[in-house]
Amino acid sequence: MVNETQHTCSASSSSKSDGGSSSGSESSKDSSRCSTPVLDADRHERLREKMRRRQDSGDKWFSLEFFPPRTANAAVNLISRFDRMGAGGPLFIDVTWHPAGDPGSDKETSSMIIANTAVNYCGLETILHMTCCNQTKDDITGHLQKAKRLGLKNIMALRGDPAGEEWEEEVAGFNYAVDLVKHIRNEFDDYFDICVAGYPKGHPEAESYEADLRHLKEKVFAGADFIITQLFFRSETFLKFMKDCQAIGITCPIIPGIFPIQGYHSLRQLVKLSKLEVPQEIKDVIEPIKDNDAAIRNYGVELAVSMCRELLDSGMVHGLHFYTLNREVATTEVLKRLGIWKEDPRRPLPWAVSAHPKRRVEDVRPIFWASRPKSYIYRTQEWDDFPNGRWGNSSSPAFGELKDYYLFYLKSKSPREELLKMWGEELTGEESVFEVFTCYITGEPNKNGHKVTCMPWNDDPLATETNLLKEQLEKVNRRGILTINSQPNINGKPSTDPIVGWGPSGGYVFQKAYLEFFASSEIVTALLKVLKKYELRVNYHIVNVKGQNITNAPDLQPNAVTWGIFPGREIIQPTVVDPVSFLSWKDEAFALWIEQWAKLYEEESPSRMIIQYIHDNYYLVNLVDNDFPLENCLWQVVDDTFELLN
Amino acid sequence: MVNETQHTCSASSSSKSDGGSSSGSESSKDSSRCSTPVLDADRHERLREKMRRRQDSGDKWFSLEFFPPRTANAAVNLISRFDRMGAGGPLFIDVTWHPAGDPGSDKETSSMIIANTAVNYCGLETILHMTCCNQTKDDITGHLQKAKRLGLKNIMALRGDPAGEEWEEEVAGFNYAVDLVKHIRNEFDDYFDICVAGYPKGHPEAESYEADLRHLKEKVFAGADFIITQLFFRSETFLKFMKDCQAIGITCPIIPGIFPIQGYHSLRQLVKLSKLEVPQEIKDVIEPIKDNDAAIRNYGVELAVSMCRELLDSGMVHGLHFYTLNREVATTEVLKRLGIWKEDPRRPLPWAVSAHPKRRVEDVRPIFWASRPKSYIYRTQEWDDFPNGRWGNSSSPAFGELKDYYLFYLKSKSPREELLKMWGEELTGEESVFEVFTCYITGEPNKNGHKVTCMPWNDDPLATETNLLKEQLEKVNRRGILTINSQPNINGKPSTDPIVGWGPSGGYVFQKAYLEFFASSEIVTALLKVLKKYELRVNYHIVNVKGQNITNAPDLQPNAVTWGIFPGREIIQPTVVDPVSFLSWKDEAFALWIEQWAKLYEEESPSRMIIQYIHDNYYLVNLVDNDFPLENCLWQVVDDTFELLN
Repeated sequence: MVNETQHTCSASSSSKSDGGSSSGSESSKDSSRCSTPVLDADRHERLREKMRRRQDSGDKWFSLEFFPPRTANAAVNLISRFDRMGAGGPLFIDVTWHPAGDPGSDKETSSMIIANTAVNYCGLETILHMTCCNQTKDDITGHLQKAKRLGLKNIMALRGDPAGEEWEEEVAGFNYAVDLVKHIRNEFDDYFDICVAGYPKGHPEAESYEADLRHLKEKVFAGADFIITQLFFRSETFLKFMKDCQAIGITCPIIPGIFPIQGYHSLRQLVKLSKLEVPQEIKDVIEPIKDNDAAIRNYGVELAVSMCRELLDSGMVHGLHFYTLNREVATTEVLKRLGIWKEDPRRPLPWAVSAHPKRRVEDVRPIFWASRPKSYIYRTQEWDDFPNGRWGNSSSPAFGELKDYYLFYLKSKSPREELLKMWGEELTGEESVFEVFTCYITGEPNKNGHKVTCMPWNDDPLATETNLLKEQLEKVNRRGILTINSQPNINGKPSTDPIVGWGPSGGYVFQKAYLEFFASSEIVTALLKVLKKYELRVNYHIVNVKGQNITNAPDLQPNAVTWGIFPGREIIQPTVVDPVSFLSWKDEAFALWIEQWAKLYEEESPSRMIIQYIHDNYYLVNLVDNDFPLENCLWQVVDDTFELLN
Repeated sequence: MVNETQHTCSASSSSKSDGGSSSGSESSKDSSRCSTPVLDADRHERLREKMRRRQDSGDKWFSLEFFPPRTANAAVNLISRFDRMGAGGPLFIDVTWHPAGDPGSDKETSSMIIANTAVNYCGLETILHMTCCNQTKDDITGHLQKAKRLGLKNIMALRGDPAGEEWEEEVAGFNYAVDLVKHIRNEFDDYFDICVAGYPKGHPEAESYEADLRHLKEKVFAGADFIITQLFFRSETFLKFMKDCQAIGITCPIIPGIFPIQGYHSLRQLVKLSKLEVPQEIKDVIEPIKDNDAAIRNYGVELAVSMCRELLDSGMVHGLHFYTLNREVATTEVLKRLGIWKEDPRRPLPWAVSAHPKRRVEDVRPIFWASRPKSYIYRTQEWDDFPNGRWGNSSSPAFGELKDYYLFYLKSKSPREELLKMWGEELTGEESVFEVFTCYITGEPNKNGHKVTCMPWNDDPLATETNLLKEQLEKVNRRGILTINSQPNINGKPSTDPIVGWGPSGGYVFQKAYLEFFASSEIVTALLKVLKKYELRVNYHIVNVKGQNITNAPDLQPNAVTWGIFPGREIIQPTVVDPVSFLSWKDEAFALWIEQWAKLYEEESPSRMIIQYIHDNYYLVNLVDNDFPLENCLWQVVDDTFELLN
């Protein structure tokens, strides 16, 4: 008996308790010894598994369809919309594919790049549409390879519209969606989750409704994982279609496509394209109010809500797919009224998680990019694996180079004029810069009456958490300690805390106080004298644009500054101050002075020279107070520094 | 400039601050991304580096020489001595090699196995002596390979005494220590640190003192890293020798061998063996008191202390090597009087660290073996890598099988009669077993007046920490909750706390309350009802000998139950409750009932049947209270359970 050690527990589920998970469960099968504690099951599942899990748990869900924008400006707006609508908790979004619009290109408006942004930067599970008609096998394989490389995991396989009026089948070409499904499965095995389209009224070009159902069955049997339907106007239409599908052996999920009517013209156009007939009772309501957009939208919302309710009440429908037409209001309204828009303030980690499969295990990042998370994702996109559990020592892989393209494409959404109003049409000295920083912190308007709502070092508005430090931050910015990142110390607040909480409930989160700022060499000289007194209580890194680096970090080790303790889990430490990556951040932080601020002004102008002077002469400083259970001493450090200067 | 990211900081040490470590330092060179935060520099250095670091820092050190024991009992005693003398902080110990005693064998008394125990189980840096005279190349290579496999990293290369009186050189054989040094460097490159012997009076068989110095130089130039000398009686002898060595170009460390005279006969024997002459002034003192052991030892201590002081005061000596003759008192006394015996109550981790190079990064262990650390090391010795940073998910490598050899060799040091006195000559029912557990906790004598100082599940006496829980533990053991492991919750005590502290100073340590016990199925049934009320606050694993397993651990993830937050470092979580390894521990924990307790009694005897009944029917339970900042709720859980039973 002594030698009969039992390493797996597969035989031991006999006395499993209620709600207890028995050993040897599926979920641990492909786990490796150093894998991340499962904080967020979603990150570890593919779309079809998520769908199945939601169906099993009875949790209703929704998804959102968008089309690629026409201009770069529209792309920036669409990405903001992804962030806002992502907050409601869609199971996925999808991005349509229009062969005429160069959808597979690297243009910032292409379907490929928009889907890439949704997955990688917005952290959304994303389906990329792809059509096959009139395309070569090589083109399609190229698109699929690129999608895979970018981290896309789901394809909606479509035929697409034939180019000419008189379309003829190509021998050995891609004539139907089923050819594309087969091709994907042949070339990429089970890598992609595949979605196909279903037509509740039958495809307009099909010989018959029955024939179209058989085509759908072919697509599913060729390897599609689920079906999204064309829009329809009556719940009976969908429910009948679903029963008919089941009757001929289609068992995969079928998701109804919902189109909230948002206007008379968009409805007409869609109907024309889809060759659908609008039921008479709807026409009767719409025709009289066709010039009243608000009235039509209200009616559309009402109609969608009641149809969705019928679908959900049928017990056959678990998820709803919305054709948003890239608009927010109507869909959000329908979702809220249905009660399936779920803004969950709980964050799985204190930073925005990317949905790229390579980043599945990522759970540690340097704190420096806290206000520029998209930049961090961009600069680490070539990494082969991501820190998990620990950041580890200094030999972390290199950060990608900064490219002008990036600095501009993902930069502030405000146009130059607006930036000048916020950051000063004309700077008169370093003090005018101090004022900009101060106004950003306080939210007060500047001398010319403009509020400073963004800074080069922040993607997003000031974090709620930063407000906890507002008073002190104002004081120090006024005197030339130009703060760009900070967090208060937290000694064990519940993980559900609305401001500093993250991770599953029942846990406790902790932080070490952190302060990062630019300061002149005079201030830094005084600061270094003051810091001696604090010894190891305060860790510091001080660096200028040339890379002159002063630190008391032991052996270049990272310092964990945010961590959480959760029931039944290992410890998670999602942010660290890492001495080595600080030097990569330093390049970016200094570059932003020039690329985003100095370049607003004419060359050789006094304003530009002031920013250039700061860029050339200031130091970037970060401070960590290691004694998180005590009162944050960093303000005392700064006070002592100013006192020494006086 | 934007593209000139600077990833290393080698060019940036120009403005390095006092005491600050600049980037790109040596220490981080071979670190990998997932390496352990350097808690204890010692674990990452080889012996010659430690020596150099101590010399540079001016820190005086000592080392201790032992010979292999003759009997298994003596081996057990010697290992206890390693633990006790290890507490004083020797830089290393060394184990001598006697060809007649089968020193390379697997016998528990062989030099090889004793050195293995010192390194792996006692965590001591260890040098294994090895002689080459009269041995084949293959034999020696075999010994070296075995030493390497066992984790030994240092060899003292010696010639050894020729077998017969008339010794002749063998052609192409190993005739001198230098041949062994060369062989080690040829076959094992730089793997081993090599030590050689120096003779302050010249080797008795050398043609001359000068010739012997030349031989020594040859050994060093062949690849030896440092020299330990033969004993001597006057500090001048050593200091002259050292200068003579330096004069001919020997620059490696030379460590004086100190022999505290401990008795008349041992001195005579040693002098005979080493062919040294005892100075007249020493003989004059000793002869008159030769039958008074205590007087001789006192004199020996005095003499050693004053000679060591002279050596250290010379400024040429940084470390002292003691010939202990396997005795403790005299050497410890000398070391304490010199002030270099340094009992450091601070632990680098909350468990005893092994010195095997493979385990260098190890910093996480399951809590189950907390009281049987040697068993944990034994059962994981075949692992190729060790958990570092995180335990990770359930696919950790298998634990080695339990072997009777192990269960007995490293088992309780007490003989059967003593165990019977403690654990009961005759058990009358389960209650007599409850009493044994209760007496172990309270320290009170049992019914027959014998104290229970050990239990099958504990290598060592009750941890100081456990005393914090004594009162509650007594209460529950009395009622049949037979505790074998526990820890209180700790919400951020200083890392220097004398009871629960560990790791570098300036940090904070934390614990979740833990309780592990055996209990009858009646108790377990009630317990499970009670646990429902506590939901995720309390994680539990309950298993019987057959492997029936009940748990509420999410996805078989480990639960961190001890962790520490330190200045400038990532978080360390040295102990976890791991659901998978619990099942390996279960086998061991149940086996100990039979192997160590039941087998004390005759087969078929009522006492044996009582233990067998417990083994067959009881459950092993562990409980973790996840709410470490609140009052430990586990006692309430147990109280509720007893209440439900009444």
